[in-house]
Amino acid sequence: MAVDALRAPDRPAVERRAVLPDGFLAGGVTAGIKASGRPDVALVVATSGPAAAAAVFTPNAFAAAPVRRSRANLAATSEDPRGSYGFASAVISTSGCANAATGAAGEDDQATVGRLVARRLGIHETAVLHLSTGVIGTRLPLDKVAAGVEAVAGAATPTDEGLAAAAEALRTTDSRAKVATTSIELPAQDGASVPVTVSGIAKGVGMIHPNMATMLSVVVTDAPVAPEVLWGLLRPAAARTWDQLSVDGDTSTNDTVFVLASGAAGAVPVAAGSGAAVALGSAIEAVARDLARQQAADGEGATILITASVTGAADDADARAVARAVVSSSLVKAAAHGKDPNWGRIAGAAGNAVTASAAVLEASGLSADEAAARANRPATIDPDRLRISIAGHPVFDGASGGPLSFDRAAARAAMDGPELVIGLDLGLGDGLGEAFGCDLTEAYVIENSEYTT
Amino acid sequence: MAVDALRAPDRPAVERRAVLPDGFLAGGVTAGIKASGRPDVALVVATSGPAAAAAVFTPNAFAAAPVRRSRANLAATSEDPRGSYGFASAVISTSGCANAATGAAGEDDQATVGRLVARRLGIHETAVLHLSTGVIGTRLPLDKVAAGVEAVAGAATPTDEGLAAAAEALRTTDSRAKVATTSIELPAQDGASVPVTVSGIAKGVGMIHPNMATMLSVVVTDAPVAPEVLWGLLRPAAARTWDQLSVDGDTSTNDTVFVLASGAAGAVPVAAGSGAAVALGSAIEAVARDLARQQAADGEGATILITASVTGAADDADARAVARAVVSSSLVKAAAHGKDPNWGRIAGAAGNAVTASAAVLEASGLSADEAAARANRPATIDPDRLRISIAGHPVFDGASGGPLSFDRAAARAAMDGPELVIGLDLGLGDGLGEAFGCDLTEAYVIENSEYTT
Repeated sequence: MAVDALRAPDRPAVERRAVLPDGFLAGGVTAGIKASGRPDVALVVATSGPAAAAAVFTPNAFAAAPVRRSRANLAATSEDPRGSYGFASAVISTSGCANAATGAAGEDDQATVGRLVARRLGIHETAVLHLSTGVIGTRLPLDKVAAGVEAVAGAATPTDEGLAAAAEALRTTDSRAKVATTSIELPAQDGASVPVTVSGIAKGVGMIHPNMATMLSVVVTDAPVAPEVLWGLLRPAAARTWDQLSVDGDTSTNDTVFVLASGAAGAVPVAAGSGAAVALGSAIEAVARDLARQQAADGEGATILITASVTGAADDADARAVARAVVSSSLVKAAAHGKDPNWGRIAGAAGNAVTASAAVLEASGLSADEAAARANRPATIDPDRLRISIAGHPVFDGASGGPLSFDRAAARAAMDGPELVIGLDLGLGDGLGEAFGCDLTEAYVIENSEYTT
Repeated sequence: MAVDALRAPDRPAVERRAVLPDGFLAGGVTAGIKASGRPDVALVVATSGPAAAAAVFTPNAFAAAPVRRSRANLAATSEDPRGSYGFASAVISTSGCANAATGAAGEDDQATVGRLVARRLGIHETAVLHLSTGVIGTRLPLDKVAAGVEAVAGAATPTDEGLAAAAEALRTTDSRAKVATTSIELPAQDGASVPVTVSGIAKGVGMIHPNMATMLSVVVTDAPVAPEVLWGLLRPAAARTWDQLSVDGDTSTNDTVFVLASGAAGAVPVAAGSGAAVALGSAIEAVARDLARQQAADGEGATILITASVTGAADDADARAVARAVVSSSLVKAAAHGKDPNWGRIAGAAGNAVTASAAVLEASGLSADEAAARANRPATIDPDRLRISIAGHPVFDGASGGPLSFDRAAARAAMDGPELVIGLDLGLGDGLGEAFGCDLTEAYVIENSEYTT
């Protein structure tokens, strides 16, 4: 595990600004796909030749046409048949129509989008990566998309404003655009160091009528790094951030994360396992974590970001499992909404924790054998060693007989803010993990039970 | 798989009445554990000597004191160290206090309850099985429980009214008591046949302040059957019914199912694998299924019972996984509440389906090796073969390009009833499965976000 933000003494500082790294153009326009008339086509273009690209895709069996097209394109530019890394010159995003569950016709439509982008930019079709989000089961309005591609290619600029416009055009029901950036120093060719930027844009997990929540994130950097190395940095970062994000437990057909590296910063190419790789991985993870936190905080109907922070687990896989179980519990989410310091629900949720799939555990840094052996197992918890704190108030200590007496009014007051931190120490080892979620509110139910089809 | 209610041509008919089989006393009284003053201590006693007993317990790592005590008692009366079957003469239930997360003191309290029951009934402590449900983290009020044990032992009768009183005393926030009964014929010693009764009582999955939902069920029968055979019938029945029940995805620290068989009907002892075993297993499963449906329908804040019925899966494990994923989806649950025939959410939920744990798959009838190989895997789904119907209206057919045009107003009207059946045919094989859930409502959120500690 080369990269581990939780243990890093100097986690890179992240700012919520759109900062476009060198070697890219970006922009967003309104093409009329969304009925609202808001921006709905986003484009990011690598201008220094094909950028190294790495991806994480939804595991949903109903992966939408843009997911399948992106996988195929990455696979066409690398030797990895999984389509998880390769080279790409552009990312095109359409918002308002997911192009999911549209069958062969939807596949053809997405291919047409790729051809339009490739022709307009003078690149190969396989160099285009695709994102879509919005209504499921309806066809892309290709005439509008064609005009949007033409417009966004003309509008894209090598500026921070361009990246901000792209972030804006990713949105669906997000209450705000989501951006994050950090910078690090990497060794330069001349022995000195050069600044490298890592920036991300994302759409959150807000519901789309009549669709499911979709999470889309694009990270861009001017670091020079080969696709496979980049993928090796993205996977553990995603396993510790986006894979620990839960709004309502539903995984979309369209969830996608892309990282593109232009290499324009002029640093020495980042070698796997090097100090530069650790630095770049930490920066990617810091941006991923901040975007994931923005996505959780802006969950449908949410009023509170819930962070579960787990220490003392037998290992990190257990810690992440417990954290994920806590933020995923409907009962914990409802208690958070009610500012109820209800440790019983937290303990109960922790007691149901199950480790992640082998794929996610392997991504987080375990060997294939270790991942297979640890996957989908109940996390090890000893009630007699567990300690729980809510918003900084110790409420349960298994070693002292369990429930602690605490100032409920003060705990309740401490819960009354935009973020609730739930701390669990399992008292078993040095495993660490965290997860991000949001409260369950009447607004979530109302928004998602409205008749809309 | 000896028993399979979904495939059985003559699934036993179930009535929602309290019918006490021969060989038992039952009763329920008010002991003051609940602040509401409603009945809160239930007792079932086997009067023909120790009854064969089998159990399914919560997998929650925070298993409450009554769960641990029951496991230990069953293990003490059989050679199975898992404590899943053995002999028992009584089931005692206290409602209003879960005796969970109470540490060693809670263990002692539960042992005291067992001693009180054993002394009053003149049986061995290990012959007492324990149920508790209610507030977590608080101690049992032993003085009240002692008086309650005395009272309920005096009140218990060999009558249907006694069983109804026991069902009443199991309740917490359930809107009604839950009972179910069926009868079958088993071969008698003289070559004729005798009627055998299988009856169940249960508490549903309503929230308890400040606790999590708890499911308790007790099935009693006068069939003569050895503990291990009984367990072999309970396991697949539970895997296809209670394990397919979801209200809010939270598994309680106290969930327990007991089956007790008195043998008082005078039939020939039921041998494993015999026709009588199939008949008895079908009856147990029919009662379990009906109780599970009552529990789902009475979920906290629920207004609709959602049944997902899956056919055409590659195997039953996949079918049950898909059914469970559909009824567990917050988005499907909210759409059901809004009478929205939203097939996109159903398809998306199905696409996330993951098979059950190895323990549950083994319980359902797979060999240990098969269960290990099939557990925790994504269910096989081909979007191009999937068909979906909502309340009898075909809405999606992958082989015909996906979305079907349908009469939305009529579908919406058909969804406006107490039960919504969602049908999915995967078009891959002959695997069958079903699952039971309820809609997600504002009332759920309001009830569970109220500040109560």
